[in-house]
Amino acid sequence: MREGFQDDLHRLTTRLADMCDAAAVAVRDATSALIDADLVLAQQVIAADDDLDAQRAQCEEDAYALLALQAPVAGDLRRVLAVVYCAEKIERMGDLAAHIADTARFAHPAPAVPAGIAPTFERMGRLDAEIAERVATQIRTGTDGFHELRQADEAVDTLHADLLADITGRNWEHDQRAAVTAALTTRFYERFADQAVSVAKRLEFANTGDLPQ
Amino acid sequence: MREGFQDDLHRLTTRLADMCDAAAVAVRDATSALIDADLVLAQQVIAADDDLDAQRAQCEEDAYALLALQAPVAGDLRRVLAVVYCAEKIERMGDLAAHIADTARFAHPAPAVPAGIAPTFERMGRLDAEIAERVATQIRTGTDGFHELRQADEAVDTLHADLLADITGRNWEHDQRAAVTAALTTRFYERFADQAVSVAKRLEFANTGDLPQ
Repeated sequence: MREGFQDDLHRLTTRLADMCDAAAVAVRDATSALIDADLVLAQQVIAADDDLDAQRAQCEEDAYALLALQAPVAGDLRRVLAVVYCAEKIERMGDLAAHIADTARFAHPAPAVPAGIAPTFERMGRLDAEIAERVATQIRTGTDGFHELRQADEAVDTLHADLLADITGRNWEHDQRAAVTAALTTRFYERFADQAVSVAKRLEFANTGDLPQ
Repeated sequence: MREGFQDDLHRLTTRLADMCDAAAVAVRDATSALIDADLVLAQQVIAADDDLDAQRAQCEEDAYALLALQAPVAGDLRRVLAVVYCAEKIERMGDLAAHIADTARFAHPAPAVPAGIAPTFERMGRLDAEIAERVATQIRTGTDGFHELRQADEAVDTLHADLLADITGRNWEHDQRAAVTAALTTRFYERFADQAVSVAKRLEFANTGDLPQ
């Protein structure tokens, strides 16, 4: 019985890690679509998001079955509930990547963001993807990479703040439509990283028992 | 034992409804602060958000205790897990209201949004507050107000889309800083309503057993 439970839990967390990897791919591809005005890639990211939504629903259903059948307590209970919590956050990461892809699709064939600030989006996309991959590794290995994750998240926050300052500053050379698109898009990247940090925090809680604030 | 469980669950859902009411107050006050450039009110909304965060943590702790001690199944299990899910969404609604208040605070003593579009923010604020109150009623009475809620959410979406079109249109008379602030702020209102809809959906799931997609 206990062994069956640990196997089931392991399957659940493996799916969670796979979802995180899918979110990493999504944000990396969405960023390429954004920078290169690649309509096909944008549509691919948007279509792939359905799969992440389905995986979230499956994760949750399996977690509920585990709770109902095995009634785990203490650490085991926390770990199952962490899966439910994290699956929803990772689904949201996929949504945000799809929003970025949608921005590229909407602007196509024109580029959605001015060439001058494209490198910043590129850096944010790379950081977001790395963050998601780090979380996937954390899930798979049970190691604590929270400090590095926090640093990467802060780097995204800094890029986000700098970009907003550029966009709203006196030297902005484009119209307010470009400003608004860039501002909303940079917020998608910032929120993506935030969700990943929530996931990492929740995993830490599942291991230590301290509720994240 | 069963009676004790139902009492505990009732206390949990009552707190959830109270949190929803607090989120309604927060978005209503944040909107007044935004429209009237009211710094004191803005600071009050931001300070009150800590309380909502603490209530979420308490909700979750109590729900975990209930799961561990009583190991509920079927509908009871779904209802306890719905509390955990909803508490987090309502906390997020409070965060979004605090973001709106923060926008007012940051711009003070100038108004954060141009007078010409202030009425739209006023309407979105009223709709968001009504949506949160509707959800509170749904939690307290167990009635299904999902259809009306969805309509109110669609009204917010329409105001959001219209406002974005205004902001990015040719007739925009202000600078791109005002455009960016308005665009990010209208998104806070839209997200607030989205979270409330998630809560309502999850409550429906808790009652019917069909997982929301």
